[in-house]
This record gives sequence, structure tokens and C-alpha cells, in this order.
Amino acid sequence: MTGPVAADIADEILGKTRRGMLEGGFDVVVATSPENVAYTSGASPPSQKTVRSRLAAAIVPLQGETELVAVSLEGPVVREQSRLDSVELYEEFVDDPVDVVARSLLERGLEAATIGIEITHLSHADYVKLAAALPKARLLPADGALAELRTIKTAAEIARIREIGTAAENITKEVFASFGAGASEREIATFVAERYADAGGDGLTMLVVGSGVRSAAVNAPPTGRVLERGDILRLDVIGTKGHYHSDVARTAVVGEPSDDQQRTYDLLLDVHRRCLDALRPGVLSSDVYRIYSEALELAGLPSYHFVGHGLGITLHEEPFVNALSSIPLAEGMVLCIEPLTLLEGRFGIQIEDEVLITADGCEPLTEAAELPRLVENA
Amino acid sequence: MTGPVAADIADEILGKTRRGMLEGGFDVVVATSPENVAYTSGASPPSQKTVRSRLAAAIVPLQGETELVAVSLEGPVVREQSRLDSVELYEEFVDDPVDVVARSLLERGLEAATIGIEITHLSHADYVKLAAALPKARLLPADGALAELRTIKTAAEIARIREIGTAAENITKEVFASFGAGASEREIATFVAERYADAGGDGLTMLVVGSGVRSAAVNAPPTGRVLERGDILRLDVIGTKGHYHSDVARTAVVGEPSDDQQRTYDLLLDVHRRCLDALRPGVLSSDVYRIYSEALELAGLPSYHFVGHGLGITLHEEPFVNALSSIPLAEGMVLCIEPLTLLEGRFGIQIEDEVLITADGCEPLTEAAELPRLVENA
Repeated sequence: MTGPVAADIADEILGKTRRGMLEGGFDVVVATSPENVAYTSGASPPSQKTVRSRLAAAIVPLQGETELVAVSLEGPVVREQSRLDSVELYEEFVDDPVDVVARSLLERGLEAATIGIEITHLSHADYVKLAAALPKARLLPADGALAELRTIKTAAEIARIREIGTAAENITKEVFASFGAGASEREIATFVAERYADAGGDGLTMLVVGSGVRSAAVNAPPTGRVLERGDILRLDVIGTKGHYHSDVARTAVVGEPSDDQQRTYDLLLDVHRRCLDALRPGVLSSDVYRIYSEALELAGLPSYHFVGHGLGITLHEEPFVNALSSIPLAEGMVLCIEPLTLLEGRFGIQIEDEVLITADGCEPLTEAAELPRLVENA
Repeated sequence: MTGPVAADIADEILGKTRRGMLEGGFDVVVATSPENVAYTSGASPPSQKTVRSRLAAAIVPLQGETELVAVSLEGPVVREQSRLDSVELYEEFVDDPVDVVARSLLERGLEAATIGIEITHLSHADYVKLAAALPKARLLPADGALAELRTIKTAAEIARIREIGTAAENITKEVFASFGAGASEREIATFVAERYADAGGDGLTMLVVGSGVRSAAVNAPPTGRVLERGDILRLDVIGTKGHYHSDVARTAVVGEPSDDQQRTYDLLLDVHRRCLDALRPGVLSSDVYRIYSEALELAGLPSYHFVGHGLGITLHEEPFVNALSSIPLAEGMVLCIEPLTLLEGRFGIQIEDEVLITADGCEPLTEAAELPRLVENA
């Protein structure tokens, strides 16, 4: 990433965060979830997700200096990544990270402040410690406010998502052009992983390579199974580059499709396009879901409990495109739309694109087409 | 894994858990962390770690039937894995998992029970919901009790750890025999990942491939850097097979080592062996740490804040082998001992083995030797 883009992100996101805090009545936000630490600070301490006790916190006061708190052994990484004013490191096993956060808040004169915390992330133990250290403060949930802020992407965020999403889509095209009957799911997975790294990706966080009946399993990791003529192959390329996710799924067939495979794919592609046609500011996400669920019900095909989701620092984020989430779409949202039908014991078909909501409609960042065919004889 | 071993694990672990509950005064334990859900139930809902709202819970009453609560889309996976008496699934976005847990406890007549929960894992939001749903119950931390139970491995657990640990060690030997100057860190990483999958591993959760000056970075993921003559190469093979971790690190040199590299390696190997010699029931983990820290201080080398840790379902678990953790070692513990020195801008050396504490000493599950040398000219 170049300097200017990083600076844009910092200014845009901290500005947005503070406007959101003003609306929500917060004097300061203490973000602790990996996604909101990354969002507000730009830093992702690598072991924050794997070692629960290594709490990281981004402290963003409405006025005054911001600070990132992280475990000392991640110091070199987070100092390079963070765009906050300072970095405060703690020694694992010696200092309690909650004490360090409380001290930082006290130093900022926030002992009686309204403090936004993430109650769906912060453990009960840490909550109790923080409340005890700041008896005059009001600790209020900022979870919803932060999730809502993150739904509208900045220009720099959109550029990052587009870059790795397009790379993921191109990799699926390469797979379909390079592999056929005789290749194993694992060989394909290795190829995808290498190409993803070549594209500058940090790594795949989940990769679906499901062939034959395995294409009907929800999350099918690659196995040694070898592709045969007539197999459906379902790929879902999920990974990250510089905090931002790709999530692009494609379905292909080895050789000639059966009538059933072709008909099912065509129906899903039609549903997919109708969902995309419906996307524009003001439309409710639940209305988009209904296009999918009603079409599949009419066709007698099993539907999934969602047909899409916001995409960004987390893989699945607001707005969820399901029956229950009635969020009005807005310009700057990035969604995945992924009609899916899983016919157990037979095959599964999924067509997933990343889409940007624009002022008057949407702009696909990736774009699926007719059923791709792999070489029949390897 | 064969049936009998799985049954052993189930009986041993549920029996141990209930004995621990009796000691701790719990009527029921509700495990929610990925490690303790896996430990008590045998199941790992795949998206439990990546999607925070998909809470899983293993309900283990002192008497009566056990139950696993998980999100419905993981149903097929957890039904196959779980060894608890029943599985209760909830619909994402429709049911709140905490309500489902509370209902299960009420059905068991536990509305006024002493309930062990994991306060360092359960979010404050979920804690508040659970407490409100069970106003007569006492919610007490079971975090420490569960961590302590997990320090002593059962025979079946030891067999699993040994199997994937030995595989990881063999892979490092293969790397040193197959690669030399001219190979890139990423090529080595691809080779390790493939071999790990061949050994039945689920995947690498972290892999260090640090060559040259990069060998001195704490957690060095593989890059495109190409090995040169005189480079140190540090490998740390961290992954899982069927819930259990491998964690084996080796350091090698390309061609002839410098005097400094050889001397530093020999010193670390000597420290490593002295740490192993000290391992036996009753010894304090902090005393083992002191062997390492004092030797490195004497040699004028930077030491790390721990020299080892328990290994099992989590990568780092009790007993930690550091200055502050004075846990008496006991038969059946499995530790990693990993003396490490990182000379910034020059090279880093780490020698890590997995070790089982026995009745009168220890048994290394893997065993490092003299400094391995890679081929100088590729």
C-alpha cells in the first residue's frame, strides 16, 4: 500500500469514527475486537486472535490523542502498522492489559467519561476489571455504532477490496483454464494459495474446493479427491490482503453438464442477476433476500438462510442479506451476493460476486458469467 | 482416529472433568471457549473461532446428560464429532445461543445451581443475558479449574500429540535434506504445508520460515526471500491434527556456519538439554526458566520472556515456563521447551522439542541434535 492511500484511510476513518461517537454520546471509544482495532488503528497484532489473553485496544477519544495498547512482543509489527498517535506496550504475564487501558484513560482525564466498549467482544472478566478501575465512568456498548460505521466504506477501503477481489476472481478463471479431470482438489488448492500469495494476499482464511458430491457440503475444504468427468467443482476464495477480505465463489463443471446441472446453474445465475438489479440505496436487505428465497422455493430447490453479507475487515458483517435484517442499503456499502443451492448427495452450486452500492444502483467489483467448463480429459 | 481411542478420550476426559467439578463445587460447567468445548465435547464447530456470534457451549452437569449447543449450519460436523449425550442446534439470526443454553440448564433442573462459566471467554453481553435468564443461579469462574484439568494429558491425548509432533519433526528433517541455497522461504513453506497434509494434519496454524536476518524476527512468516550461503534458517512447524497441536522448531545453516553461529547454536543446545534434564514431577516451571535465562545472561545473549509452555488443544497453555509461573510439574504434562535467542539484524536461533513429564523425569517426544547443514549450492 502506498503512503497517500494509508493517510486517506487514517483521516477518513478516524474522522468518521469521531462523528459516530458524537452522535452516540461517547467521550471515548475503546475498541478491542480484532476488526475494530484494525479499523480504527490500522494495526492487527498477529497473535491477538489466537492467544485470547493478548488483548489489544485502540483508544480513540473524541478530543485529544489516540493510543494503541498491545502486547510487547508484537511491538515491531504494530508500531509499523498503527496510525494512532502513540503505542503503549505491555509485558505478557507481568502487566494486565486492562490496567494499561485504564491508566491510559485516566491520563486523558477520562475517569468520569462515557466510554464506548465492545460488550460482545470484551470478556466478562475484563469488563469487571475495567469497571473496577474506573468507578466513576459510564461503560456503554459501542458495538452497534462501530458496526454501522464500518458498513459504509471509504474510497481507500473500496480500492483495497476491489484489488484483492479482482485477484481472487482472476485466480478462479486460471483454475478453470488450467485444471480438468484427473486433478485433485488439493492440487487446485495449492495452486490457488500460490497465486493468492503472488497477488500480494496475506493468505487464505478459508478456501472451498468441493468437487462432485462434496460440492454440496457448506464449507468443503480441499481433499485428495480427484476430479472426474461430469463433476461439479465449487470454489470459494476467501482470504485477506492488508486487513481486507476477498470472497468470490464460482461453480464449474468438468466436461459437459447434465441437464439438471445446467438448469440449476442458469436458474442461480438468473437469481443472482435479479438480486444485483435490485441493489440501490434505500432498498432493504431483506427484500433482496426475498428475491432469492422465493425463486428457489418456486423451483423446489433448497435455499440458504442468507444470500449475502457486507464485506470488509470481517468476512461477514452488516448488512446481512437475510430474511430478518431489514437494513436500508446505502451508497458506499460493499456486499457479497451469493445465491447458493446445496443438493445433498448430488451437487452444490454457488455464484458469488462482490458489489459496491452506488448513488443510483450498484457496481459489481467481480462478475460471474455462464457455467464454466473444465477440460474433460486431463 | 480409531473408535477405541475416541471412547477412551471421552471416558477419561468427562470423568476427569466431573472430578474437577466436584472439587471446585460446581453443579454444572458451561464451557464456551473453543479449547474447552473441544476438550469436553470432542467437537470444534469450524466457524466458532471466526464468527464471534456463533457461540458454542458444552454443558456438563455433575450428574445427568451432557449437551452440546452449536449453530445449525455446523450441525453435520458437530454431530459427527461430539461425544456428549445430545446436540442442540440454534438458527443463526433467529435464536440467541445464550437463551438456548439457559433453556438447556432449566430443563436439567439447574435454575438455582452453581454454574461454572468461562469469564475470560464469555463476552460481557452474553454474561449479562445468562445471568438475567437464570436469576437464582450462581455463576462462578471455572476458567482456572478447566485450565488445570487440561495440563495433565490422558494416554489417548498423549498418543495424538506424539503422532503429529513426530510428523512435524520429520518434516523439518526432510526440509533440511531437500532444500539449500537458491530455494525461497515460500517454496519451503509450500513443501511443509503439503507434507503436513500428507501426515493427516488439519493444517498449519502458524509457520515460521525465517532465513538470514529474518530468522531473528519473533514470528517470521515465509516470504519470497531466497536462501544464501551462510544463512541461518529457522523453522517452527505449528499446526493441528484432530484438535491437538504440533509445535517443533529447528534451526539450520546453509553451508558452513560462522564461529558465532556455531557457538550460539551449541550454547542453546546445551541449555536445551539442561532444561530437559531438570524436568521431573515437583520441579517448578519457574526453576526451569531460570536455567535458560541465567545461561543466556551469562553469555551476554538476549533471552525471551518464556522458554516453554504446555501443549495440547491450545498452542500455549499452562504450565507456562517463565519467571512468574511457579507451577509444580506433574506426570502426564506435555511441554514444549524452546530456548531461543534473537540477535536483531544478524540471526535467530531456536531449538524446540515436545516433552512428556514421566513419573521420574521426562520423555522427549521429539529430539533436536547438532546444527543441521543445508546444501550450499542448489
